[in-house]
Amino acid sequence: MTQLFRVDEQTCKSSGELGLAMLELIRELYPIGRSITGPGLRATVQRLSKIVPLQITEIPTGTHVFDWTVPDEWWVEEAYVEDVKGRRVIDMRNSSLHIVGYSVSVDTEMTLSELKPHLHSLPAHPDWVPFRTSYYNRNWGFCVAERVLQSLTEGPYRVVIRSHLGAGSLTLAEYVHRGTSDEEVLVFAHDCHPSLANDNLSGLAVAINLAAYVRPRVMRYTYRFVFAPATIGSITWLAVNEPQLHRIKHGLVLCLLGNRGPLRYKETRSGDTAIDRAAWHVLRTEFSSSLRLGFSPWGYDERQFASPGINLPVGAIMRSQSGEYPEYHTSADNLDLLSPESLGESWLACLKIFEALEGNVSYRNLQAKGEPQLGRRGLYRQTGGYYTDVPERQMAFLWLLNQSDGMHSLLDIAQRAQLPFKVIADAATELECVGLLAPA
Amino acid sequence: MTQLFRVDEQTCKSSGELGLAMLELIRELYPIGRSITGPGLRATVQRLSKIVPLQITEIPTGTHVFDWTVPDEWWVEEAYVEDVKGRRVIDMRNSSLHIVGYSVSVDTEMTLSELKPHLHSLPAHPDWVPFRTSYYNRNWGFCVAERVLQSLTEGPYRVVIRSHLGAGSLTLAEYVHRGTSDEEVLVFAHDCHPSLANDNLSGLAVAINLAAYVRPRVMRYTYRFVFAPATIGSITWLAVNEPQLHRIKHGLVLCLLGNRGPLRYKETRSGDTAIDRAAWHVLRTEFSSSLRLGFSPWGYDERQFASPGINLPVGAIMRSQSGEYPEYHTSADNLDLLSPESLGESWLACLKIFEALEGNVSYRNLQAKGEPQLGRRGLYRQTGGYYTDVPERQMAFLWLLNQSDGMHSLLDIAQRAQLPFKVIADAATELECVGLLAPA
Amino acid sequence: MTQLFRVDEQTCKSSGELGLAMLELIRELYPIGRSITGPGLRATVQRLSKIVPLQITEIPTGTHVFDWTVPDEWWVEEAYVEDVKGRRVIDMRNSSLHIVGYSVSVDTEMTLSELKPHLHSLPAHPDWVPFRTSYYNRNWGFCVAERVLQSLTEGPYRVVIRSHLGAGSLTLAEYVHRGTSDEEVLVFAHDCHPSLANDNLSGLAVAINLAAYVRPRVMRYTYRFVFAPATIGSITWLAVNEPQLHRIKHGLVLCLLGNRGPLRYKETRSGDTAIDRAAWHVLRTEFSSSLRLGFSPWGYDERQFASPGINLPVGAIMRSQSGEYPEYHTSADNLDLLSPESLGESWLACLKIFEALEGNVSYRNLQAKGEPQLGRRGLYRQTGGYYTDVPERQMAFLWLLNQSDGMHSLLDIAQRAQLPFKVIADAATELECVGLLAPA
Repeated sequence: MTQLFRVDEQTCKSSGELGLAMLELIRELYPIGRSITGPGLRATVQRLSKIVPLQITEIPTGTHVFDWTVPDEWWVEEAYVEDVKGRRVIDMRNSSLHIVGYSVSVDTEMTLSELKPHLHSLPAHPDWVPFRTSYYNRNWGFCVAERVLQSLTEGPYRVVIRSHLGAGSLTLAEYVHRGTSDEEVLVFAHDCHPSLANDNLSGLAVAINLAAYVRPRVMRYTYRFVFAPATIGSITWLAVNEPQLHRIKHGLVLCLLGNRGPLRYKETRSGDTAIDRAAWHVLRTEFSSSLRLGFSPWGYDERQFASPGINLPVGAIMRSQSGEYPEYHTSADNLDLLSPESLGESWLACLKIFEALEGNVSYRNLQAKGEPQLGRRGLYRQTGGYYTDVPERQMAFLWLLNQSDGMHSLLDIAQRAQLPFKVIADAATELECVGLLAPA
Repeated sequence: MTQLFRVDEQTCKSSGELGLAMLELIRELYPIGRSITGPGLRATVQRLSKIVPLQITEIPTGTHVFDWTVPDEWWVEEAYVEDVKGRRVIDMRNSSLHIVGYSVSVDTEMTLSELKPHLHSLPAHPDWVPFRTSYYNRNWGFCVAERVLQSLTEGPYRVVIRSHLGAGSLTLAEYVHRGTSDEEVLVFAHDCHPSLANDNLSGLAVAINLAAYVRPRVMRYTYRFVFAPATIGSITWLAVNEPQLHRIKHGLVLCLLGNRGPLRYKETRSGDTAIDRAAWHVLRTEFSSSLRLGFSPWGYDERQFASPGINLPVGAIMRSQSGEYPEYHTSADNLDLLSPESLGESWLACLKIFEALEGNVSYRNLQAKGEPQLGRRGLYRQTGGYYTDVPERQMAFLWLLNQSDGMHSLLDIAQRAQLPFKVIADAATELECVGLLAPA
Repeated sequence: MTQLFRVDEQTCKSSGELGLAMLELIRELYPIGRSITGPGLRATVQRLSKIVPLQITEIPTGTHVFDWTVPDEWWVEEAYVEDVKGRRVIDMRNSSLHIVGYSVSVDTEMTLSELKPHLHSLPAHPDWVPFRTSYYNRNWGFCVAERVLQSLTEGPYRVVIRSHLGAGSLTLAEYVHRGTSDEEVLVFAHDCHPSLANDNLSGLAVAINLAAYVRPRVMRYTYRFVFAPATIGSITWLAVNEPQLHRIKHGLVLCLLGNRGPLRYKETRSGDTAIDRAAWHVLRTEFSSSLRLGFSPWGYDERQFASPGINLPVGAIMRSQSGEYPEYHTSADNLDLLSPESLGESWLACLKIFEALEGNVSYRNLQAKGEPQLGRRGLYRQTGGYYTDVPERQMAFLWLLNQSDGMHSLLDIAQRAQLPFKVIADAATELECVGLLAPA
């Protein structure tokens, strides 16, 4: 008898409680000053390692990774702007967003006019602090609420950034759960953003809890969870792991999974792979109002997986699109934006996508001429004639028997029947039990 | 010159009158107590045989037919429930629906409480009697209007069913009209339902009158009309005729064709066969508001033809879907539900589908470089310049000349031109007459 | 470095002024009495020759051209209807529309009753004179406003037509601009209509000015501009040039391009050729409200190019469909119907279609693993993090890098990116300049 991974009732029910736990994890990770390298990034993956032990790989500064080079490592001791009375009008201790990522050191005095070119604010959102970086262009700067900026007098101000920028390494972290097959499902989440909640802490929380869920379970596929900085991190990971990439058969980039609003699935580059079909089938049959987004070379690390020289079937799952919600990359992307229900539901949706990938096998109808007599096998109502509806399980039996001709997998059949994958998969098991279906 | 079956004006006009005749036939068949075997079924096919002589085949009880076995034959002498004063509160003489199909014999006295598990009613429709059966589970029961059920006192009641259930046979009936080719068009109608008008008497009336229409005519295809009980009947017919099934190139299941409302065509399993294209083209160009239904393994005997081991291109034509009109399988599916116009139109639609199947040949344009000069052949207006519309016949000429490159049949062209098949077929004959088209 | 034809800003701006010049040209050509042969046709192409020198070919009467024969040449010296007082109640000197095309000579006296079968009017538009012809049926007649017709007394009238109908020739005119390749783009406009402005003078004005624009420029394709009478002219041209037709890789029929309202592109016979894709992409991304029309064997000379024995990929571009605007083929199709903006925009749209055809080459991404680092090449913003939108040029870079795998041309990429072709083509040039793309 075929025994495949199933998301049971208990798991579905547990997603609410898990959502709360994920929110707590995010609350803990939120203040850490992350960047694409450095101690904040390391602290983050070490916290995740308490949930599932991650294998850490440090890639040295200067390593050539495709068209890029691993940059210097960066961290900031302190960063502030002080007025003549010694009051810190901007101070990184209040939020890791205040410092422009990869700012060089500075310790000088200047007037507001001189300082202004180094200050970033959002006039349209006067209370929000933007997130800005200057990874590949040596510079320095502060991010500040427009309202604060407007309140500043001409100065002079003392400007202090004590940052460290030099040879070091970029931190990659991963967890691999071996399945019965070497074929892999890749789950990728970026981990380089400072104090932003939905982007990227929601993705980290969902990914690490998916790892925790599959860890004790027997799976058909090998599941590889990768945590790395956006862009340079995924490129570095791809470059380092290039010889093994052929094992990746399906993949998902996770991001922006904690806000309210419907789930969105973004297609792979070709839009018609198994992960596209599995993910979208799960979302449209089990998560109402879900949206499907066409592929675009804009977004997160799915861009790297979709580059023509890599071309892996990696989709993305999210609740918002990068840049398309107003709080994106500002201090307003904080814990208030998140809902534990959304986090839990995002996690459950991913599990159900795994379920569809794991269970997408094909059967053969052993009584293929006419419909078999389900009644004498206890799979059909005993009294015929009048009825008002047909139960899903009944329809699942009929679709399975009709389509199990060796050319249709369970996912094909679930799609055609417009039934949740689990309904089809469970019905297939029942039909296999009574000898009507056999693995194709 | 190619001479193919055409549905002429006279035939179209006659459909109204024929609808009335079909309604009379249905009125005559309505009271007969049919089941999947037995004398009611035989009486029904004998009445149809008066219109077109049917070949009857009796398949003995116990015959193995694929996964099924031909059941015992069943009939009922009498069936009633009598109160202490000898009044029959339920009596099968009033309607063949009162007895649950395949009820075993019983003659006993019991209180209402004891009787109730054997009574079937429809609380949502208190005046209607449901249709119920227990073909494969030995049991007995009565169907009754909820209003009658509510009026019953505690009893006791005498319950009498004198039924006969034992070795016999299942009755198949068919008529074959030989065409110039051995390739067959199958028309199937189930004939096992008791006093229900739309289901299945409308299908029988339309099918037998299609047989009557083609009988005196020269057809390209061989037309096979099969009358058999639903499910077990079609399975039995398939099992008995398995070696000849390869001859069936197109098929239609007819049912639920007498009620008001638009025609519906239900696709074959693959949805893209010639019968799908012919039937839907006819319906959408000539019968307004027609609907197209995707294939589903729910419905009538198209399910058996669509099983993966049989896999014949058999669609279904109907005006309602089984289970999706409230009167379905109740005493309210009576003659009031039927309209003679609907019956006539259903018959005409089938004939026009035959017309498209018969006439779906390909031509070759003999003057394929530029448009030929239709004017000097009398096929184009003599005065050019201002015009306000282009007649259908004119457009048919132009589409035929443009598309007759050996890769497009008349049905292909009619579909692309969005013109009725007959307009294209008649125009093709005209172009063939003047030497512009030749059979491809 | 690949250097391809581009429609620059200056050209776009010049289209308004050119629209006015085209309107002047049309005003000059409007009064000329054109037909499918004769001096009016010759005068028209000679006027066009002043803009770009056309090569004239005269095809003698009686020449067999596929299924047709080149007709007698026709012209009219004078044509009028005179009342007893010598007043001309209808006179061709007032409008070339008054005489039915190819009318034979007549000089007789008759009553209104006798005359009426020879008079054509439009009761629904009492002030408009229709355009009528009788090319292949010897006859004579006058076209007249219904209001004039109603005012006529019983007569008698003197009816005079002095026409010449005899051996002569049919006039073809063309201009060929040689490209670096022998492969051709065909531009066809019919030139046989008398005093009608939109049909066909707008087409002539746009076509000759397209020829003038490409004349001094280096093009990849050879551009062939053909001016010929509708139907018999295109058929004659095809018959005479049959051995060279294989060089035509893309084509456009131009007509009805001067009226207000959106641009319309009518598909080639197959609907999926390069010209279909180029033309529709340009229209839908750069000309708002554009419409796409399916192929139909009705319309203008695209019918001949689409005949199965010719089967060239020739679409049509227009602002109205023949027969589908009320003024079509009446005296109301005059200069008031035209807008210089529409003429200019039609011309510009055709140039942009040429741009897409010329530039539809394929590139290969030379840094195909992951995204290349655009920042260090000056092609990406220096400061990351918060942003609110992504510029078109940025998206064009990313789409080009993602899709340049040797299987997608620039037009494929522009379609997928939903960006104007020029944005993609210009971005490709930039990427080629920095060594990220190379011709595939």
